[in-house]
Amino acid sequence: MPELFYVLTPQQAYSQLEPFLSFSGRVERIATTRALGRVLAEEVFAPFPLPSSPCSAMDGYAVQAEDTYGSSETSPIYLHLVGEVLIGGPARLSLSPGEAALIHTGSLLPGQANAVVMVEHTRQVDTSTIEVTRPVAVGENVLQRGEDIPQGKALLPQGHLLRPQDIGGLLAQGITSVSVSQPPRVAIISSGDELVLPQIEPGVGQVRDINSYTLAGLTLEAGGIPLPQPIVRDDFEALREAAERALAAADIVVFSAGSSVSARDMTAQIINSLGSPGILVHGVAIKPGKPTILAVAGQKPIFGLPGNPVSAIITFELFVTRAIYRLNGCNKPPAPHIFSARLTHNIPSVSGREDYVPVRVEEREEGLWVEPIFGKSNFISTLIKADGMVQVPLDKGGLKAGDEVKVRFF
Amino acid sequence: MPELFYVLTPQQAYSQLEPFLSFSGRVERIATTRALGRVLAEEVFAPFPLPSSPCSAMDGYAVQAEDTYGSSETSPIYLHLVGEVLIGGPARLSLSPGEAALIHTGSLLPGQANAVVMVEHTRQVDTSTIEVTRPVAVGENVLQRGEDIPQGKALLPQGHLLRPQDIGGLLAQGITSVSVSQPPRVAIISSGDELVLPQIEPGVGQVRDINSYTLAGLTLEAGGIPLPQPIVRDDFEALREAAERALAAADIVVFSAGSSVSARDMTAQIINSLGSPGILVHGVAIKPGKPTILAVAGQKPIFGLPGNPVSAIITFELFVTRAIYRLNGCNKPPAPHIFSARLTHNIPSVSGREDYVPVRVEEREEGLWVEPIFGKSNFISTLIKADGMVQVPLDKGGLKAGDEVKVRFF
Repeated sequence: MPELFYVLTPQQAYSQLEPFLSFSGRVERIATTRALGRVLAEEVFAPFPLPSSPCSAMDGYAVQAEDTYGSSETSPIYLHLVGEVLIGGPARLSLSPGEAALIHTGSLLPGQANAVVMVEHTRQVDTSTIEVTRPVAVGENVLQRGEDIPQGKALLPQGHLLRPQDIGGLLAQGITSVSVSQPPRVAIISSGDELVLPQIEPGVGQVRDINSYTLAGLTLEAGGIPLPQPIVRDDFEALREAAERALAAADIVVFSAGSSVSARDMTAQIINSLGSPGILVHGVAIKPGKPTILAVAGQKPIFGLPGNPVSAIITFELFVTRAIYRLNGCNKPPAPHIFSARLTHNIPSVSGREDYVPVRVEEREEGLWVEPIFGKSNFISTLIKADGMVQVPLDKGGLKAGDEVKVRFF
Repeated sequence: MPELFYVLTPQQAYSQLEPFLSFSGRVERIATTRALGRVLAEEVFAPFPLPSSPCSAMDGYAVQAEDTYGSSETSPIYLHLVGEVLIGGPARLSLSPGEAALIHTGSLLPGQANAVVMVEHTRQVDTSTIEVTRPVAVGENVLQRGEDIPQGKALLPQGHLLRPQDIGGLLAQGITSVSVSQPPRVAIISSGDELVLPQIEPGVGQVRDINSYTLAGLTLEAGGIPLPQPIVRDDFEALREAAERALAAADIVVFSAGSSVSARDMTAQIINSLGSPGILVHGVAIKPGKPTILAVAGQKPIFGLPGNPVSAIITFELFVTRAIYRLNGCNKPPAPHIFSARLTHNIPSVSGREDYVPVRVEEREEGLWVEPIFGKSNFISTLIKADGMVQVPLDKGGLKAGDEVKVRFF
């Protein structure tokens, strides 16, 4: 079993692959309203200043600041109310010394006004007079032209994953279409003589394929396009043909082979036959997931994941998810969702290996606790029961009940 | 300003609304392969036991356990190798005492075999003999029928949000369609005389609508269906007609009114005119976001959110996101993505109020730090720059530079 000789830590393993992961460069222009979750393929600059003209940041009265100097609760000053600046149009007003105009948040400042007194610091005396009880400085409660976003300012960098507020911000600038990367296509090949499609009644010794669907879901969550391939028998030529078709059709190829050593060995041989540099890593110091293969052929990353469903998920998230973000041109992928909790039971481990143990979350009065699920790692029930995974770090020989641990949502 | 008199904490405010939030009961049956992110509307039970027959959990040799008793490295026992159990079919073999058969992970156990010796504890002596160096107990390295999932077992509860591994687990059981809830429809009404559509060149005093798009994105992320409504002028009758149309078409109505007090007052009046019980909460002890309205009419939750884009996002996530999950029948919404970091600067606050301050994340050698962005809260640039929000708890008068704080991804 050659995999035993080259066991790298997960980070060392990823470092071998990383130089081969780069943005595909394939872009498309789409409506900004449909760009949520996509990755910007261009830096975006502000075409307009925001606000486009000085406007009020508060509800209150537009004034000439100099008129308010020296005012206080005990010695207010009085201003002549000359009208109201309606929202959504030109100010249609100009102030002379001693005058004020009612103004709303977002309204344009009238001519000759240079500050806004908040409504809380005024009293209306009669229909044409207000009392001001606090002075304002020039520019106070006013947004200057371009103060929010100056014209030409870099709004969002290339490689930015678009969130709801980014979509709003782009549209606020009239940017109704954006250039985004085309999501990487991820071919998923499940192989094994025992596998049948979910809609088929399995015969004796057969089981339904799971990994094609689990890994397709993880691909979608990472922003990729899953291309599940037909199930392949444990036959060298059939698997090689399937691999070549997948490599031609996709940007990333993921193999989920049977769990037996012979099935894994065949997958490794086929991956190495697809082109150079071929296999970079065969074996990673994690449990479950040790027999993972990281490879490159035709400048495309190729992954050989263990066949058991729990291992397949863990190694997909450690390696394939990161590759999908990189090929999608994303500079700053969202951090994995990790939270702190206390362990209910000891978890044994071996130093020099990262262990991932599925856990259930329990909310107690003192906070979150997690209970390890110690099923065999190929249990489907484990997959379904688990809320997350506890990572036992490389340098730890295990974790103790009561320890505060980091849990990764599953 | 009536909102000042009834200022509740965010949790008190949500408690007022919560009794009115219940699953719509509208369900649909869809293909399991398309159910990622949907909420199960029925409890799902296992139609079959998994595995369906006893099978091997390891690569190794099927044996009769009794034959291996007493074996050790120094005193191995020898078994007659009678063949190989191929994967994906019946075992086609039966063992007599003193016999063993090569077996792969997942293969059916041959007749009369009751345990599997791992390949690591054997040596093949010649084509028909193996040496066993460790005893196995009856059932060791064997998965019994139904050991992973017993027939009839509750697999997933009603109200479960379907993850990639759940999709895989359902398909492993041949469950190719599932009953899921129909996602709640969320009408979003942006109103204001100053608002124009993003594709329009704003006239003097006008700005492009942002909130319709930001809130539509947040709705999608929470599993709802956004129904953005046409922009409405600050006109009582127009806004009331729009509100009634929205209430008829949607399960949740969200108003994003102008930021001025008069626009907010009008929204409050209209919400109260839609039916009973009407407004439950008007004013919440958070900054920004104080003028938030929570209401119910026609048994549908209605939200009046502040018009400024930062407040609108914060109050949406605090209240509307939770309502969407509840109406979608989701029992256990995903926890908000919160991480710990250290503050670079002091954040002043007032005890008795929850403050949310947008921050930028900085990765330093010692860990994550966050820098507060102290812009005016209606700055669009703040929305775009921020990676997350720091929450200053109700009972704190502020936070100090160097404090460890909880940050919520934005």
